[in-house]
Amino acid sequence: MNTFGNILRLTTFGESHGAAMGGVVDGFPAGISIDIPSLQAEVARRRPGQGALTTARRESDEVEILSGIFEGRTTGTPLAFIVRNEDHRSADYEALRHVLRPSHADYTYLAKYGIRDHRGGGRASARETLCRVVGGALARQALKLHGITVRAYTSQVGTVAVERPYQELDLSRTYESDVRCPDDVAANRMREAIEAARREGDTIGGVATCIVSGCPAGLGEPVAGKLNAALAAAMMSINAAKGFEVGDGFAMAAKKGSEMNDAFVPASDDARGLRTLTNHSGGIQGGISNGEDIVMRVAFKPVPTLLSEQTTTTDAGTPIRYAAHGRHDPCVLPRAVPVVEAMAALTILDYYLLNAASRM
Amino acid sequence: MNTFGNILRLTTFGESHGAAMGGVVDGFPAGISIDIPSLQAEVARRRPGQGALTTARRESDEVEILSGIFEGRTTGTPLAFIVRNEDHRSADYEALRHVLRPSHADYTYLAKYGIRDHRGGGRASARETLCRVVGGALARQALKLHGITVRAYTSQVGTVAVERPYQELDLSRTYESDVRCPDDVAANRMREAIEAARREGDTIGGVATCIVSGCPAGLGEPVAGKLNAALAAAMMSINAAKGFEVGDGFAMAAKKGSEMNDAFVPASDDARGLRTLTNHSGGIQGGISNGEDIVMRVAFKPVPTLLSEQTTTTDAGTPIRYAAHGRHDPCVLPRAVPVVEAMAALTILDYYLLNAASRM
Amino acid sequence: MNTFGNILRLTTFGESHGAAMGGVVDGFPAGISIDIPSLQAEVARRRPGQGALTTARRESDEVEILSGIFEGRTTGTPLAFIVRNEDHRSADYEALRHVLRPSHADYTYLAKYGIRDHRGGGRASARETLCRVVGGALARQALKLHGITVRAYTSQVGTVAVERPYQELDLSRTYESDVRCPDDVAANRMREAIEAARREGDTIGGVATCIVSGCPAGLGEPVAGKLNAALAAAMMSINAAKGFEVGDGFAMAAKKGSEMNDAFVPASDDARGLRTLTNHSGGIQGGISNGEDIVMRVAFKPVPTLLSEQTTTTDAGTPIRYAAHGRHDPCVLPRAVPVVEAMAALTILDYYLLNAASRM
Amino acid sequence: MNTFGNILRLTTFGESHGAAMGGVVDGFPAGISIDIPSLQAEVARRRPGQGALTTARRESDEVEILSGIFEGRTTGTPLAFIVRNEDHRSADYEALRHVLRPSHADYTYLAKYGIRDHRGGGRASARETLCRVVGGALARQALKLHGITVRAYTSQVGTVAVERPYQELDLSRTYESDVRCPDDVAANRMREAIEAARREGDTIGGVATCIVSGCPAGLGEPVAGKLNAALAAAMMSINAAKGFEVGDGFAMAAKKGSEMNDAFVPASDDARGLRTLTNHSGGIQGGISNGEDIVMRVAFKPVPTLLSEQTTTTDAGTPIRYAAHGRHDPCVLPRAVPVVEAMAALTILDYYLLNAASRM
Repeated sequence: MNTFGNILRLTTFGESHGAAMGGVVDGFPAGISIDIPSLQAEVARRRPGQGALTTARRESDEVEILSGIFEGRTTGTPLAFIVRNEDHRSADYEALRHVLRPSHADYTYLAKYGIRDHRGGGRASARETLCRVVGGALARQALKLHGITVRAYTSQVGTVAVERPYQELDLSRTYESDVRCPDDVAANRMREAIEAARREGDTIGGVATCIVSGCPAGLGEPVAGKLNAALAAAMMSINAAKGFEVGDGFAMAAKKGSEMNDAFVPASDDARGLRTLTNHSGGIQGGISNGEDIVMRVAFKPVPTLLSEQTTTTDAGTPIRYAAHGRHDPCVLPRAVPVVEAMAALTILDYYLLNAASRM
Repeated sequence: MNTFGNILRLTTFGESHGAAMGGVVDGFPAGISIDIPSLQAEVARRRPGQGALTTARRESDEVEILSGIFEGRTTGTPLAFIVRNEDHRSADYEALRHVLRPSHADYTYLAKYGIRDHRGGGRASARETLCRVVGGALARQALKLHGITVRAYTSQVGTVAVERPYQELDLSRTYESDVRCPDDVAANRMREAIEAARREGDTIGGVATCIVSGCPAGLGEPVAGKLNAALAAAMMSINAAKGFEVGDGFAMAAKKGSEMNDAFVPASDDARGLRTLTNHSGGIQGGISNGEDIVMRVAFKPVPTLLSEQTTTTDAGTPIRYAAHGRHDPCVLPRAVPVVEAMAALTILDYYLLNAASRM
Repeated sequence: MNTFGNILRLTTFGESHGAAMGGVVDGFPAGISIDIPSLQAEVARRRPGQGALTTARRESDEVEILSGIFEGRTTGTPLAFIVRNEDHRSADYEALRHVLRPSHADYTYLAKYGIRDHRGGGRASARETLCRVVGGALARQALKLHGITVRAYTSQVGTVAVERPYQELDLSRTYESDVRCPDDVAANRMREAIEAARREGDTIGGVATCIVSGCPAGLGEPVAGKLNAALAAAMMSINAAKGFEVGDGFAMAAKKGSEMNDAFVPASDDARGLRTLTNHSGGIQGGISNGEDIVMRVAFKPVPTLLSEQTTTTDAGTPIRYAAHGRHDPCVLPRAVPVVEAMAALTILDYYLLNAASRM
Repeated sequence: MNTFGNILRLTTFGESHGAAMGGVVDGFPAGISIDIPSLQAEVARRRPGQGALTTARRESDEVEILSGIFEGRTTGTPLAFIVRNEDHRSADYEALRHVLRPSHADYTYLAKYGIRDHRGGGRASARETLCRVVGGALARQALKLHGITVRAYTSQVGTVAVERPYQELDLSRTYESDVRCPDDVAANRMREAIEAARREGDTIGGVATCIVSGCPAGLGEPVAGKLNAALAAAMMSINAAKGFEVGDGFAMAAKKGSEMNDAFVPASDDARGLRTLTNHSGGIQGGISNGEDIVMRVAFKPVPTLLSEQTTTTDAGTPIRYAAHGRHDPCVLPRAVPVVEAMAALTILDYYLLNAASRM
């Protein structure tokens, strides 16, 4: 099941070491001018080999669009794209053919399908998220025309967290930082934490925060298609994601209603005529956007591929010791941030279009 | 959008003060004997008016099954059910017709649909989750035949958390406790926290933990239908849910890979021939179940309905002061626990059936 | 799989001799005033026991709406309804428990599900279409606000066919005729053909023609959601439907392109600025409505329930002779006409809403 | 909406004169060996330029598979494929930029999307069906392992129809005939009819008959997913299809029940223990396959592209005269036959997998 969305549907395909990755974006609104260089630049943001903190895999990741655009504009027909896999040294992986790497998808794919492409994680490789970034970049261009922006950043790596609220950060600077954190002090400490983990042959987890601004009130389709449920599914489908929260999230469990309620106040300068004084709800109430910023956090586990030796078994259940070699990210966050943005953009555009379908 | 699931589909309907709540369960396997009294007993678990901690609304909540069962067994045709709303004193709500209660769905439903049923929250009422419990109870009876059990409990209320791991708790005792917590010491402190909140006219949040045991390896449909994504959507669609995590969840963000990896070990006594030494992953790797217990946590915000006075506005944007009257839960957890179980059971059965469709 | 539609979704449930039939209409636009007496009158059109030509089953078929309407208007939440089955003399059917009636669904339901409700056809009973008429009546009220009308009539019974084109008929008089044919001469001959079949203990087939007028250009979602494909599926899902065609349909197979092409001509009095000179295409080109009348025909087989004796087998494969008793329609057409209208209305409204979702 | 199917999903993309056509097959069973040369051979069957009766467009139509196959076998992950468009002389089409060709999709795409790719029909080109043939070829390889075969042939061109029942034809010889008709006498007369139409600058319609053999009883998901409804939608989504019937179809409208009923008879040599004496139902009863041959017919209109001059308008509503030039098929049937087979195979495999999901 490789299709995301209801009206706007992104189908992705491709294995890490197959011929190509790619996707089909269906249901994209017609008549929208697409800026291809800008799309290509967004894709580059998650590309490996771009800093000290991410892996050295050499891929140009050039996106070829095969359909759906005519004379620079979308036509309402499906936009298909492919990205060739250039750097596939499949033979490197022969030694892993029967290894069940701990906390990878090796065992579960084998258990489910009875067969698996062991080369570089196959379909379970994070390289698949490249296709989501392409889809997300297209979605963002459509959202932008309606004043909706999606911005994410690394808000935690290991025990280092950004203390300041997002309103005090300059989110336009996120991609200037190799850890994708616009708070310089935190960014430096995050980088140190990542490098320390790398030096130990270890890896480290983290959290991405994502903000959707300019989203109109009314998006969300209760009760099965609540916007927070759709965003949760989108984010939890990202490799290594283990937790999701909206607004104050898990912290609300420890709080009183009197502390957490978002009172409405008149706002003559707002199209809605009102706004909320606080935003503990994170922009969603009853599963529908209320016009405030949508605020989410996604927790990522430490990358399970370690350069230090681990014990595990083969697919025959024989105990072995195993250590990874070569290129591997010590922390997924720098590359997860654009993926989080992409999944948010795809979901918001899908629900924007769904909301249009709720009226005559 | 009121249908959950892919193969097993639950469509719910009904407003808090309409004629009836109900649902249709489609895609349920044929030939399964249904124990109606047991189903009715499960529904009673979330019924209001059953203890000091939940509201006094008087409803018998008798489930009438209208179709899909013939001579005690399911026929493969849709199972429809209704529960009449007996206690609907609609006039009580007239004063709320134009009030936008803070952190409720009043404003967002109005913004989306241009009309709303203001009586008791209308469609956004937690009473809707009754229908999910019916669907979940049916799903559990099917899962039980294959050795799969789903159990949830209240693991946190305010700042009171169960410290012991779930393996040390007797989960069969959960429903003996009015807070739905099988740890007596924690349960007592939770009860005190809820009663303290109630005395102050306030409310309090909490966390439910859910365990799926006996689930075979192979459930989950990557990459868009990862099992953790489906569970996240299911849980985040529950009223007041603000966070979801699987396995060690958000705590993994602060950890190293060497601490979090679940090594495979041989297990001659297990049908798989192996198992994992630890279960930080929470039973899901690469979006597919691995045969270990599936472990999830869902965070709930404090109920936004306060008996103490709050400021807010009318739907015309006029500031007002408002306080709720009458029956309201000070904490959603006791009644959320069976709903969490229901959503887990529905999701697991759906993915069990989807997995059958992946083979010839 | 008992849900029709994409945005507008009708889920039906119920067996012929169960407690009730019913349905849930989800995705219906909010804020629309619903005329309940008019809806009830539409349902009465397919009710049995209303003329010499249809069966004597006595049902009041009173529709109870359970949700989704507040103070007379739709709220955007699901509209659920039920119709109680009053006349279920289940014991009458005991003799049929093991009989596989020819050309019924007895064998196929048993083969698929391993169990079947043998009473009155169970889920496969034409009584299920009652639920579609309710859904269709709701859809028609929404379409009417946008000037879209849906009208069907019996255009053939046995070898008796209406010769005049639909433009020469007064389609507002269809329901004055017990055979649902607005051409009096043809109607009389159809009635005779039905009565002749009945006298012989036999049954007879026929064709319904359906016209959608006022439909804007642009409905249809190529290439998988072509409007003609969606209409075909909707019509072929009706009990006893065996053929579907749009425009000149099967007759086009024998024709030349020069005879069948619909030339565009300027039309200053039309909002489109043009129209087509002929309408062999039946209002759909490339899977999208072109603004001309949508014209379809649906072929129905003769009812397989005969009062004369037939040979067949039991579910154990034992040959038997069997004849039906009691109430049975000798021709499905009079009652199929409102169902054809309902399926057309549901499909057109669904695609109207889908089309709204294709724009920003 | 460019995705066909439920469990087995084919998403197609591409415009006639864009960079490439292609598709993604998702939900394909894992572990199946794929014979690529055989797949390529099936694609060649619908390729233009192969006989006197089809157009001279020169395309090698080489299918490149990008994912989903590992070491010769399917892995359960999406199979993506592309076919490059080699022969796209876009400039040839400049004169058609503003012409609304009669009975083409020019006007409707423009009305829906506000923009259209006018080159060679864009997305509405029959070239899109190439992608369905690829998907269908994959599906057939899976079905073959379970003894299910799908065979179609041209049964009518203009007024020339095959008189013999399909059981008397050698369907393995269909592709030896350039009109795709295994009845030599009829094939010769069909060829003459097509050539006569071509000489007049005209085109001609026809009918394809399709037979699915070896299909087990039990496929079909009533009431919204009846197998005949799914097949109808699949067939009516093919370019130029205007009618669909199953079994005796429209002819049943003129018949009596006593003539059309398919009596069950014992059959000790059949796994079912019974079969039907006749097959007027066409292998489907109550929307579910009964194990007999599934028999369908699809009517195709004459190709609307004529070499003789026609009147029509521009997209500004200005009357013009217009005649097509260059390569165009005078009859769609020879190339429609493999597409009909493909759509049948995709649908049957989808429902085969769906049926597996209906059991535990």
